[in-house]
Amino acid sequence: MTEQAKYRFLLIPPFRLPEASRFNVSITGVPIDLPKEERLMNASLILPHLENVEWELHPGELATYGDWPVETREEFAYAASARLPNVKKACETGKYNGIVLLGGGEPGFAEAREIGLQHGVVVTGNAFSQLHLATMLGNKFTVLDVMGVHNFYYRDVIITHQLAHRCASIRHIGYHLPRPGNEDHPQLNDEREKMRRGEATRAAEIAVEQAHAALLEDGAEVITLGCSGVFWLQPFIKKGLKERGWDVPVLEGYSASIALAKLMIDLDINASGVTYMSDSTGQLPIKVVM
Amino acid sequence: MTEQAKYRFLLIPPFRLPEASRFNVSITGVPIDLPKEERLMNASLILPHLENVEWELHPGELATYGDWPVETREEFAYAASARLPNVKKACETGKYNGIVLLGGGEPGFAEAREIGLQHGVVVTGNAFSQLHLATMLGNKFTVLDVMGVHNFYYRDVIITHQLAHRCASIRHIGYHLPRPGNEDHPQLNDEREKMRRGEATRAAEIAVEQAHAALLEDGAEVITLGCSGVFWLQPFIKKGLKERGWDVPVLEGYSASIALAKLMIDLDINASGVTYMSDSTGQLPIKVVM
Amino acid sequence: MTEQAKYRFLLIPPFRLPEASRFNVSITGVPIDLPKEERLMNASLILPHLENVEWELHPGELATYGDWPVETREEFAYAASARLPNVKKACETGKYNGIVLLGGGEPGFAEAREIGLQHGVVVTGNAFSQLHLATMLGNKFTVLDVMGVHNFYYRDVIITHQLAHRCASIRHIGYHLPRPGNEDHPQLNDEREKMRRGEATRAAEIAVEQAHAALLEDGAEVITLGCSGVFWLQPFIKKGLKERGWDVPVLEGYSASIALAKLMIDLDINASGVTYMSDSTGQLPIKVVM
Amino acid sequence: MTEQAKYRFLLIPPFRLPEASRFNVSITGVPIDLPKEERLMNASLILPHLENVEWELHPGELATYGDWPVETREEFAYAASARLPNVKKACETGKYNGIVLLGGGEPGFAEAREIGLQHGVVVTGNAFSQLHLATMLGNKFTVLDVMGVHNFYYRDVIITHQLAHRCASIRHIGYHLPRPGNEDHPQLNDEREKMRRGEATRAAEIAVEQAHAALLEDGAEVITLGCSGVFWLQPFIKKGLKERGWDVPVLEGYSASIALAKLMIDLDINASGVTYMSDSTGQLPIKVVM
Amino acid sequence: MTEQAKYRFLLIPPFRLPEASRFNVSITGVPIDLPKEERLMNASLILPHLENVEWELHPGELATYGDWPVETREEFAYAASARLPNVKKACETGKYNGIVLLGGGEPGFAEAREIGLQHGVVVTGNAFSQLHLATMLGNKFTVLDVMGVHNFYYRDVIITHQLAHRCASIRHIGYHLPRPGNEDHPQLNDEREKMRRGEATRAAEIAVEQAHAALLEDGAEVITLGCSGVFWLQPFIKKGLKERGWDVPVLEGYSASIALAKLMIDLDINASGVTYMSDSTGQLPIKVVM
Amino acid sequence: MTEQAKYRFLLIPPFRLPEASRFNVSITGVPIDLPKEERLMNASLILPHLENVEWELHPGELATYGDWPVETREEFAYAASARLPNVKKACETGKYNGIVLLGGGEPGFAEAREIGLQHGVVVTGNAFSQLHLATMLGNKFTVLDVMGVHNFYYRDVIITHQLAHRCASIRHIGYHLPRPGNEDHPQLNDEREKMRRGEATRAAEIAVEQAHAALLEDGAEVITLGCSGVFWLQPFIKKGLKERGWDVPVLEGYSASIALAKLMIDLDINASGVTYMSDSTGQLPIKVVM
Repeated sequence: MTEQAKYRFLLIPPFRLPEASRFNVSITGVPIDLPKEERLMNASLILPHLENVEWELHPGELATYGDWPVETREEFAYAASARLPNVKKACETGKYNGIVLLGGGEPGFAEAREIGLQHGVVVTGNAFSQLHLATMLGNKFTVLDVMGVHNFYYRDVIITHQLAHRCASIRHIGYHLPRPGNEDHPQLNDEREKMRRGEATRAAEIAVEQAHAALLEDGAEVITLGCSGVFWLQPFIKKGLKERGWDVPVLEGYSASIALAKLMIDLDINASGVTYMSDSTGQLPIKVVM
Repeated sequence: MTEQAKYRFLLIPPFRLPEASRFNVSITGVPIDLPKEERLMNASLILPHLENVEWELHPGELATYGDWPVETREEFAYAASARLPNVKKACETGKYNGIVLLGGGEPGFAEAREIGLQHGVVVTGNAFSQLHLATMLGNKFTVLDVMGVHNFYYRDVIITHQLAHRCASIRHIGYHLPRPGNEDHPQLNDEREKMRRGEATRAAEIAVEQAHAALLEDGAEVITLGCSGVFWLQPFIKKGLKERGWDVPVLEGYSASIALAKLMIDLDINASGVTYMSDSTGQLPIKVVM
Repeated sequence: MTEQAKYRFLLIPPFRLPEASRFNVSITGVPIDLPKEERLMNASLILPHLENVEWELHPGELATYGDWPVETREEFAYAASARLPNVKKACETGKYNGIVLLGGGEPGFAEAREIGLQHGVVVTGNAFSQLHLATMLGNKFTVLDVMGVHNFYYRDVIITHQLAHRCASIRHIGYHLPRPGNEDHPQLNDEREKMRRGEATRAAEIAVEQAHAALLEDGAEVITLGCSGVFWLQPFIKKGLKERGWDVPVLEGYSASIALAKLMIDLDINASGVTYMSDSTGQLPIKVVM
Repeated sequence: MTEQAKYRFLLIPPFRLPEASRFNVSITGVPIDLPKEERLMNASLILPHLENVEWELHPGELATYGDWPVETREEFAYAASARLPNVKKACETGKYNGIVLLGGGEPGFAEAREIGLQHGVVVTGNAFSQLHLATMLGNKFTVLDVMGVHNFYYRDVIITHQLAHRCASIRHIGYHLPRPGNEDHPQLNDEREKMRRGEATRAAEIAVEQAHAALLEDGAEVITLGCSGVFWLQPFIKKGLKERGWDVPVLEGYSASIALAKLMIDLDINASGVTYMSDSTGQLPIKVVM
Repeated sequence: MTEQAKYRFLLIPPFRLPEASRFNVSITGVPIDLPKEERLMNASLILPHLENVEWELHPGELATYGDWPVETREEFAYAASARLPNVKKACETGKYNGIVLLGGGEPGFAEAREIGLQHGVVVTGNAFSQLHLATMLGNKFTVLDVMGVHNFYYRDVIITHQLAHRCASIRHIGYHLPRPGNEDHPQLNDEREKMRRGEATRAAEIAVEQAHAALLEDGAEVITLGCSGVFWLQPFIKKGLKERGWDVPVLEGYSASIALAKLMIDLDINASGVTYMSDSTGQLPIKVVM
Repeated sequence: MTEQAKYRFLLIPPFRLPEASRFNVSITGVPIDLPKEERLMNASLILPHLENVEWELHPGELATYGDWPVETREEFAYAASARLPNVKKACETGKYNGIVLLGGGEPGFAEAREIGLQHGVVVTGNAFSQLHLATMLGNKFTVLDVMGVHNFYYRDVIITHQLAHRCASIRHIGYHLPRPGNEDHPQLNDEREKMRRGEATRAAEIAVEQAHAALLEDGAEVITLGCSGVFWLQPFIKKGLKERGWDVPVLEGYSASIALAKLMIDLDINASGVTYMSDSTGQLPIKVVM
């Protein structure tokens, strides 16, 4: 990777599942010796955003809590601390000026940002990027998400970003992430497979219906996507809403995070060293206020 | 201007002063037949952000309320409605995919955005861009501004953007914009002239002191700049704060607005067609909520 | 106009349409040589409030953006800056101690207030007056409005007045303002004509239904009216709600603005000279806070 | 009292002290057989507001908790319930269309309003009126008050009116209300006596200093007065602030409440029958929201 | 009562009805010479919480406003001031370290707390305790209440406690408190009688339905109970929600208040002497803020 | 441990330092084979709260990020995920009905609560408990904390608990936690040693000064303690404030968490199963709201 490139990014997945996991899905768990372009989820949507970027795709750290995707607060905590050493190592190489944290629930985002700032590396995450951009585009956003506990975890994320007052609702699309014990529930993976085969998917239909309901009833004026497992739905939601007469932005996490990292590098800005201080070498305010 | 360029921007000043105006300053009123690079305020700071942009610099509409810079609510209203026809004309040419509104108080921003959306053109403004970016970098921001009524106008702008809860304070640097009746007050222009001659300026010193006070006492963790008349202070404030031990972002309006316009084009997003609807052809929510 | 009268008001419409406009309606565009009592919209409702007032009715400034009523943010900006010189002229005559800005969306209100304060003239507007009074009467208000883009413009007005948290909803009555391109939509004018002929109107029925829904479902406890095109509905809404068992205030813009202007004159108060300062002759706070 | 008068008001003091009380002051405890004009506190300030009003001044109910002015939450509760029967009786006479509750802390205001609404009588109070009007005049208000526990009681009143976010501060003027146990503290009564003798008072000086500090440091842009014991300071504060270069409204409780009662009668409005319902004969919303 | 007991509580009802009142119910009005365990409402639910407490049950002060339960703001004010002397007397005996105010709407709570603090006695109330505990258990709570005006009074209570932003809704169970004029409405007493006879009650069914609706639609995640007349429903609501698949806390006022009083005594804490000061012997802040 | 005990608690430290660490302090790192009473920090303050509790003290998980106390966001994330398996194991034993998380910044609190709820075990943390209790005692609280980055981490904790609006300030006492690189800064350990020897400590003096400043200037009315490294200061702050004339509660984390866990067990309540759901077996709301 040449030092001259303007954007030198490392993309780090939230976790990696064992290839043999029965819960494995396209989201994660792809063979790590494939080219990065083939490992990148929803590559056709995302690669255009990486055209002027020198980038690498980290394999992700093997999940320690089990072999299914993160969903509970507990699982997110494990994924966060498993990812942070990789963030630190990447920063220490000096090769990157931006780290894009993949994964809708952005485990370890605030911590990674603290680490990145020490090394002059910009760090962005998928909720952070979508949510802030959404507030620039309309009054309130609705988050479309998988079905279940992830919705409540994601609300915590929104509170952490101090954007609760701009959230109209979190609505789910009726499909679950794969997980021991919910094998009988409707599975998102099956829908994704249909999409790949070019078939119509009920998940996409429901996503449009839920987005429509959010716009009609909840006060949403922008749509964002929660779990990265639903990011592939972006073009379908855009199309479906347009057909129903709505002209609203539909954000997606990877692209939003890549674009925001570029912006910060362009402006030579990073997180505030007061907000994200990590030692005691700088100034302190007389008191910290909210 | 070739259609192929990714970013095709028109920069539109908030107003233009007659060249002969005694209140004329570098901010505005430069001969309109000069090359755009010479007409652009703080060009050395801003041109790097325009390198990959095909851009033009509108001369600005001649101020109708007088021959001094806008400062009161009344003057901003006149500047806003004088600028909007130029926004519309620019959109109708089809030449641009982004319009960057120059001017700290961004007269006509919401209206220009409504117009831009109808034509698929992204519109950004200097307060909008800085304020939103600031909330991504730290807990609260302080706005450094010229001294006087502009501070109160600017507060209205922050309220309009629904970001009042993230504003620590608006502090002024002790210098006025030129204006009939305040000729005896300390003038910002004189300071700017000193800076150009490479001399130390008291304005820059005070700006650092005020930023320091905001960080120490007000809860600010990011610094933004209010009136475009103080944008030239950005590098001085950055340097001064670093010397005092603060590592915080200092935003500037033109660069922030250019970068944000690029981001929106990269992500193919624009303002929500619900929030900024301009006719009755689309869907309406059952009721509008706050 | 004698100097002795306690209240000396000028009422200024938001704009004037050419008499020949096909979009012309009772709202505006009446022949300007008629007596003021005949030019005043909804005169029978409003004249009682002017009994102890020496008043004049400005013809309004001819609309510059077209020959239809204001509705978009752009059109409101033009109306605002067209009206301000008339406000200033009126203040400079010294004849008035109050200016009542007619028009639901109150274009130019903050600016007019700034001007008025310089001359010791009280200025009130139709949204400002209704919204503030509503918060004195109950927990939340719902705004009944025409259908379409005006609803979103009006939300901005509420945000500007910092009263978003007291707004339950903005609901529309299913009728549009006349406008090129929406001739096929249900027109408010037709309903108004029916009302004048003493016929029942569907607009009034829907208004009652929407107010009822707001009280039953949205948390509204007071009803206000948005666009001045719906002000004539006030008595019908009051009556309809009473028949349905609701005892709630229904505010109207002209009367609220006239009454509030009287109150300010009675108390010898006007807008704060800090909030609405227009030059640098007075004191400044150390910093401006939100 | 003729039925024809437009405004027929009863003014009810918050309480009455025995004439012989050593804590007696001009505020209360004046002989009840004096003409109302002589019993009315700060009559020269207030009488002009009553010129077009047919009014009576209730003697106030004898304080049950002791013979000193109300100050604690406990004392305010006793004053509230002692005043309410008088409110009810007055409403039942049918003589009045407005009841003006005297007393800065407005004991029994919400309850009196509930009673008044049942009888079609408008009820206003001194905090309610000042605080709401203040939000119409500037961004934030500071309350100037006596020194001590009353400041905290008054904060509760502001919270009750849901206006905490518009309050910059409650500042005291360094003088106490008379009360057993604080005889050694500086007494407001002595200051008031000096004022009556035409002497300069330290209380007025401090009031101006505190108002100045509030404007300079706290973000206040309007001044209101807390305990009715400080209402007499209004003209001195206005004058003092003007001399210091501030042009801001200074509200006073009696006049604000009288003017607001007139406005409500002019507009034929009263509190919402949903918010202040007192029985179950009307409609109920599906659920009550905040 | 021995001084050694850790918890020495007096429970004080909000009021007492004459035994002969036709509006009398189990809530109040039981013969005052019965043992305290028989006079205590819902004793079987509450006695376990009093096992390690030395407690007495005050008979309550006879209602002065009539012979029916409190419901309007006016009635609550009378109940408050009638209860306070009993609070004071109890404090002055030195026998108690905790006073538990019975009654959902907690008349006189803030005042009683002020009194208690002077004597080192902890005071808790039924709304205060439930509402604060609810915010520790989930994001928002819904209050289930009797039907009618009490719902609006209770909203005021929530505002007073500054917890409005955590309240999803106040929903009623379709039954009224007994009251002159609403004898024809469905009465809560009848339901309570059925419950005592071991019969199924419609009130319990509706309570479950309303709680279910609050969880499904309003954003409630915890259930609390409003008027003490509905406290007996707690076990039925818990059971009903569990059967419908909801695992959420259902709070009850008496038990919550007793438990919270114990906690405060355990921690040797009481209300802040700044917030609840009752004289001028202590320190004052420079200014009171919100 | 007998099943019969009412309270069966496990106390789990946030981390454990190697005994040989040069950064070791009383906080952590004590030999794990000592009796629990000797290992418990500030035992004399805390043991009285454990008198009626069957309790064990977990040794804490060895810190993985280094051998100094947690302070940065990164370190807190490691401590959180290291502690969670111990929480789970403890829950699975069925021995405990309460887990008290020790440590001011409560790493892993939300996750532990989610785990606890699955097993019917109540979980409390030191910030959660203090902050919520503080809002029951006065209007705003100030957090006294060690000096440095921990202040900013702690602000995030307050935001997570949605209590930012009740926080007056976070003030530090001028001493650092031990940490590589800040050996030259004033160390909290030294102060603590002095205290143990019965000597006066500057840390305690500063703590009182900062608490005093918070009460006088910031609007604090209750004091809470941030990092558990300052919990030992509680009695000194109480005493010092009393001497300065302030009567305000000073909370401490361990005792607050123990008392709150008891209260929840007494009331048979735990976190809401909607808010903290961990699988998909229960009901879901139609949409999640903020």
